Amino acid sequence: MILIGELINGTRKAIKEAIAAKDAELIRNLARTQAEAGAGFIDCNPGTVGAQEASDMRWLAEHVQAVTDQPIAFDSPNVEALRAGLEVYRGQATPMVNSVTLESDRVARVLPLVAEHGTNVVALAMSDRGVPEDVAGRVGNASRLVEACTGAGVAPERIFLDPVITMVAQDACAALKVLEAVRTIRAEFPGIHITCGLSNISFGLPQRALLNRAFLAMMASAGMDSAICDPLDADLMAMMAAAEALTGRDEYCMGYIGAARAGKLGA
Amino acid sequence: MILIGELINGTRKAIKEAIAAKDAELIRNLARTQAEAGAGFIDCNPGTVGAQEASDMRWLAEHVQAVTDQPIAFDSPNVEALRAGLEVYRGQATPMVNSVTLESDRVARVLPLVAEHGTNVVALAMSDRGVPEDVAGRVGNASRLVEACTGAGVAPERIFLDPVITMVAQDACAALKVLEAVRTIRAEFPGIHITCGLSNISFGLPQRALLNRAFLAMMASAGMDSAICDPLDADLMAMMAAAEALTGRDEYCMGYIGAARAGKLGA
Repeated sequence: MILIGELINGTRKAIKEAIAAKDAELIRNLARTQAEAGAGFIDCNPGTVGAQEASDMRWLAEHVQAVTDQPIAFDSPNVEALRAGLEVYRGQATPMVNSVTLESDRVARVLPLVAEHGTNVVALAMSDRGVPEDVAGRVGNASRLVEACTGAGVAPERIFLDPVITMVAQDACAALKVLEAVRTIRAEFPGIHITCGLSNISFGLPQRALLNRAFLAMMASAGMDSAICDPLDADLMAMMAAAEALTGRDEYCMGYIGAARAGKLGA
Repeated sequence: MILIGELINGTRKAIKEAIAAKDAELIRNLARTQAEAGAGFIDCNPGTVGAQEASDMRWLAEHVQAVTDQPIAFDSPNVEALRAGLEVYRGQATPMVNSVTLESDRVARVLPLVAEHGTNVVALAMSDRGVPEDVAGRVGNASRLVEACTGAGVAPERIFLDPVITMVAQDACAALKVLEAVRTIRAEFPGIHITCGLSNISFGLPQRALLNRAFLAMMASAGMDSAICDPLDADLMAMMAAAEALTGRDEYCMGYIGAARAGKLGA
């Protein structure tokens, strides 16, 4: 499972304040601890606007790459902020752009940037008409998005398709629909990665971490092989080890047994 | 989710000793606490042999029904022990026979008993040739078993199909195969229940409870609506509430929210 550590996100209050106060130590700590906990990418989302966002993205990138070799996922709706991040990125490992969608301006502006820099990309299955209600619409969006990416020269293994997670509190079948979409997308495109923002499923409900863990297990069994999540959530990481063992991705369960011996799976 | 509480099982050391010592209080406590924790059936498996097993089954049944109105799942490979239990059962709720299989003597001897007493039945998808390795074999066994049951007059809603769980420690794809089988069986037979002995998946591995929870979430998302498990495992029960909320079986997540308010989902 390839984890995209989600904690450096300016829409979170503590991060917004750290960015405003230029509290580099807080950012560096989050980058380091997420990488140590197993994040394959460190997401950076300044959450600010306009020219400020590009400058904040540069600042985040400098501090993250100062403390870890794990690649950055540059996360912004603002193409100039994405470009600013990519321009200061010096890592050896291929970074990520988060995200392209089927929205016309994103396809036109973000995809060329991804192709030019040869990055990985989160491909979010929504269009100008929003998020489809039904499974077929979501799968259709995913297919068109994968075609747009490969058509622009992005290799399948650089695509992290995100089927878009909606709240189960608003639609009791939200999880079932996305699980069916993931199974279909996995069968249709075996060479891509499938990821998602796990915690969106539990928005508005109590005990969110428990729902996120259950949903992780379900999504892994449907074919998801990446997640945008909090790698510092030890219970979630334990569930991830269990999900890997149960989905044939951990031969002889050696990873699981090792994690148990290291005391990472709880008491 | 319909839970079959598995704790009164003579293959467990404490129960074997309680049966030998006629320690009724231990049995009554387990029956009461499992029912209070949400068990829809209280499994009774004497784990002894021959005529002794029939007499032990009667003894277990008397003490279980003395303390709870939840129906008993009479669990034995010995048809005389099943019959002995059914004959002393006085409950209002329909009891269960655990289990019939495709093995020729079980079809011939257990199924008539199920039909005669109008009970629920765990239908275990194994035959004289054992447990099929592949998905198609397992689905084929399940189909033949459902046909045998309905042919004998057992209503679909009385059938609890158990696809047979094998160890992931021996076959990395054990869970994936059974999940695919469950999705197929669920689509083919929407009117039956699907259950399983959850903890078989984790045999031989450390931190089994964690694997069991992950597997529960996966199986629920594949269409399982019952489980043979330990209802006193609070973490498992919390995962069950999360799985119900995520699989469209808990409208507006009211069950989940109520469980959270009651402090049943952890701190």
